[in-house]
Amino acid sequence: MNKPLLASLLGLLPLATCLAQDYYADTRALWLQKAEQCKPVLTLTEKRPQHIVEMVKDTTAFQHYRSAQVAPAACLDTISFGDKKEIILDFGKHLTGHFSFAVRTTGLAADGPLRFRFTFGEVPSEVSVPFDPCPGTLSRAWLQDEVVTVMHVPDTITIPRRLAFRYVKIELLGYSPYYQFNLHDLKCMASTSATALPAPLPDTTSPLIRRIDQVGLNTLKECMQTVYEDGPKRDQRLWIGDLYLEALGNMHSYQQHDLTKRCLYLLAALSDTTGYLLATVIEQPVPRAQDGQFLFEYALLYNVALKDYLEATGDRTTAKDLWPVAKKQLDIVRTNVLPNGLMDYDKVNKAWWVFFDWREGLHKEAAMQGLSVFALRETYQLAQLLGCEKEVADLPALMKKMTKAARKYLYDRTTGFFTGMDNKQISYASQIWMILSGIATPEEGRRALAALPSAPDVCRPGTPYLYHYYIQALIDCGMEQEARQALTDYWGGMVRKGADTFWEAYDPDNDFLSPYYFHPMNSYCHAWSCTPVYFIRKYPDIFQK
Amino acid sequence: MNKPLLASLLGLLPLATCLAQDYYADTRALWLQKAEQCKPVLTLTEKRPQHIVEMVKDTTAFQHYRSAQVAPAACLDTISFGDKKEIILDFGKHLTGHFSFAVRTTGLAADGPLRFRFTFGEVPSEVSVPFDPCPGTLSRAWLQDEVVTVMHVPDTITIPRRLAFRYVKIELLGYSPYYQFNLHDLKCMASTSATALPAPLPDTTSPLIRRIDQVGLNTLKECMQTVYEDGPKRDQRLWIGDLYLEALGNMHSYQQHDLTKRCLYLLAALSDTTGYLLATVIEQPVPRAQDGQFLFEYALLYNVALKDYLEATGDRTTAKDLWPVAKKQLDIVRTNVLPNGLMDYDKVNKAWWVFFDWREGLHKEAAMQGLSVFALRETYQLAQLLGCEKEVADLPALMKKMTKAARKYLYDRTTGFFTGMDNKQISYASQIWMILSGIATPEEGRRALAALPSAPDVCRPGTPYLYHYYIQALIDCGMEQEARQALTDYWGGMVRKGADTFWEAYDPDNDFLSPYYFHPMNSYCHAWSCTPVYFIRKYPDIFQK
Repeated sequence: MNKPLLASLLGLLPLATCLAQDYYADTRALWLQKAEQCKPVLTLTEKRPQHIVEMVKDTTAFQHYRSAQVAPAACLDTISFGDKKEIILDFGKHLTGHFSFAVRTTGLAADGPLRFRFTFGEVPSEVSVPFDPCPGTLSRAWLQDEVVTVMHVPDTITIPRRLAFRYVKIELLGYSPYYQFNLHDLKCMASTSATALPAPLPDTTSPLIRRIDQVGLNTLKECMQTVYEDGPKRDQRLWIGDLYLEALGNMHSYQQHDLTKRCLYLLAALSDTTGYLLATVIEQPVPRAQDGQFLFEYALLYNVALKDYLEATGDRTTAKDLWPVAKKQLDIVRTNVLPNGLMDYDKVNKAWWVFFDWREGLHKEAAMQGLSVFALRETYQLAQLLGCEKEVADLPALMKKMTKAARKYLYDRTTGFFTGMDNKQISYASQIWMILSGIATPEEGRRALAALPSAPDVCRPGTPYLYHYYIQALIDCGMEQEARQALTDYWGGMVRKGADTFWEAYDPDNDFLSPYYFHPMNSYCHAWSCTPVYFIRKYPDIFQK
Repeated sequence: MNKPLLASLLGLLPLATCLAQDYYADTRALWLQKAEQCKPVLTLTEKRPQHIVEMVKDTTAFQHYRSAQVAPAACLDTISFGDKKEIILDFGKHLTGHFSFAVRTTGLAADGPLRFRFTFGEVPSEVSVPFDPCPGTLSRAWLQDEVVTVMHVPDTITIPRRLAFRYVKIELLGYSPYYQFNLHDLKCMASTSATALPAPLPDTTSPLIRRIDQVGLNTLKECMQTVYEDGPKRDQRLWIGDLYLEALGNMHSYQQHDLTKRCLYLLAALSDTTGYLLATVIEQPVPRAQDGQFLFEYALLYNVALKDYLEATGDRTTAKDLWPVAKKQLDIVRTNVLPNGLMDYDKVNKAWWVFFDWREGLHKEAAMQGLSVFALRETYQLAQLLGCEKEVADLPALMKKMTKAARKYLYDRTTGFFTGMDNKQISYASQIWMILSGIATPEEGRRALAALPSAPDVCRPGTPYLYHYYIQALIDCGMEQEARQALTDYWGGMVRKGADTFWEAYDPDNDFLSPYYFHPMNSYCHAWSCTPVYFIRKYPDIFQK
């Protein structure tokens, strides 16, 4: 990288980071430079629509709509669009990229402009339900409907925004009665940075698991752009939690470790001046973190992702470079642990976003304790791999103290469930994180996990994100058949409902679950849902038989 | 022009024009080449909004809306747009060009896209009334509302379509609750090919006429792009009728005769294979005429425009070049005149669009007869100027015969009005064209024109287009004071109603008159309305005193 570029990158950094009190003042610019050096070149592939379809209202279908083929997409070239007014095209698979189309007259010269609405959907319901008035709690602009005026015919138009879709509905909103026209050359220049195809699964693997694996690979590929995105439709950006799971999937499939490296450096370079990581980095128009966006467990999971990266690549240079970041995140635990060894739940909740799952009403006290211990343990292992364990010599005692406190205050020996100290909600999240942290013994874990499905008022996972940790907890407790069953039930459930890519939120009992109170706002190709790729390939004895 | 370019221009011509029966087979390509050589370079000027305004419902205002200033536009830089949701800006004058704006955050980094609707209006009502459902009979896409998604902030966006507007309403349709932003650097790169400012009117000219002249100059300037457009909002293209009047205005103001020359060549090059002119040329994406668009009086007025061009410039080369076109148009009259000397009204109406005015119910028989004789006379004068009168030696007798027929069959000596033979409708159009053709004597003309305003069930003009011919008829009859009064009443009426540029349709008694059944679809900067520029400067004794 030349000096002017380096200077311009420096210019991107918030002013505060240039001041003396910046925790990483000396290294940020270098980290950003290294992140840019790892920026992948996107592979572009031209994709054409496969079929003209209609969306059929069907209460047995996912979100009550299913697509039905009407004609091959090639028919579009020969029909006069003015007679159709609306048409839906199916590209046959989920795509991420830029959409373009051409318009031409089929008789007299065009004497006036055309106006279209293009609505892009990852799933059938998105091109079937009205978007306005929009009850969603995120920006209405995430919804992928674009109104396009074509002033002169013939013309070829590319919609400026990058889109994520399988289906596109085209509505004719304005036309002249004095000429006929049609649409042609509709295409998507699909982009991804995932190029190296993983080895296929052996023929012995069940068809359902092969299908789940393929959908997981599609999901991950679509999210691998110039960063690991959470979802190519929304939010189109790097979140630490998604990075952690995407990197796990990538390790066992595309193995494009430079993308992981880029993301680790970006997050470090754009962390808060206090040294704490911000949960998300927005790449466009210039890379920057979202100020003030502190997410408790994501900051800690960065350490785990860094350790995994080191183990997968042996790249000690990067791990050493970023070790100060991991070391600093430990303070999130250290500064929030009470004398009794429990995390100060209220204090953390005030200063941080504590996430764990999109499920309203989830009580996160036990999960917070468990994840904290999990992160301490993983970070200590990272220190050991780097020969830095003396720098974090307090960790073994701290883990022990926190484990003891959890077992004393949060475990009910009668029921066999971990809960909050006062709040006795029984949740998957609580059991999962007690198991992953090692606070629960494998036997206690097995007891809790076996009892969960039928526990009274149990709080179930609302996302594939938490479900990932559930599968891992089952495996860690030796419940291999249950892990296989849970994976094929849950991700297989999405496959049976027609998923080409796995969804951000999925509750088998509620197709309309939306963290944003409007199901078209959900992302239906979401990075954190790709992890069957990891499980199936990391644990062949469980999943490939 | 090099050969490949010439070849490509040849490629633009309809296939039929390349076949042997093409009337102008040998000369079309050359004409197109000459048209391209005269294509003006547009002058671009950056224009900024002047005020934030609100549109006030007011039944005394034009179309029931008037703008009221709220704050200087500079305030926009400092207010957070998310709190406003909607704002209307006034650029202070009518502009034609490309609009751009920039978006920036005012605090936290942008975590999601924005969605806006920009609605551009030439007059206040256009940014005040809903467009949908659109009852207009032309393409809905002419209405200037554009929905824009801004995926990344900060960014600068240029709306792709060229716009014609004074006001822009900005509505916020989608935003994230997690950051604040504002709009800044809003501007229009205004374009025109009219650069040479005409000499100012003398101080003795009345303020109202000075204002009418200025608004006329604005109108003409806005319509002078790479062709004489009819209106920069709609249809954005060359029509012969508009060309004729714009060229008259231009002769007496900007004097950019090359634009007239370009348009005359374009129309000739893209005429029908029969040799008849098509009424309109669409410049984008490549110049072509609208097939089948035969407009009776426009084809004939081409000859008048060519004669006027020759007189204004002395450019005999061009006039000689295009004389075959003018000569051919005479067949429109010759082939449609009955043995009794009247035009075959029904036959012409079947084969041609007979326009004269946007006024429902106008009976056009007398006007057709009058315009035909007018065109024959002007064409004969053109032939005399070029020394070609022997080629059209039949014209004097034909004019005489048609004049006699008109006086015999269409004139009612009792009432003093010209009407159709069976249809006795009294219209301005009939009297006007009988006067301009010389069929009516000046005295008969004066009698008819004086009686028109109070005639029973009189059919009045609906457009400035017909009003132009009305003013000319008054002048030709020596009714100078009435001409001045009519001009100041009619165009002054638009000025009093707030016009910055003159309108396509104007009925002093009906602000909502629309040829397309929806007043926002009207063009409010329309070429054929610019002719006060011509009258005021050609007849200083009448208008500049």
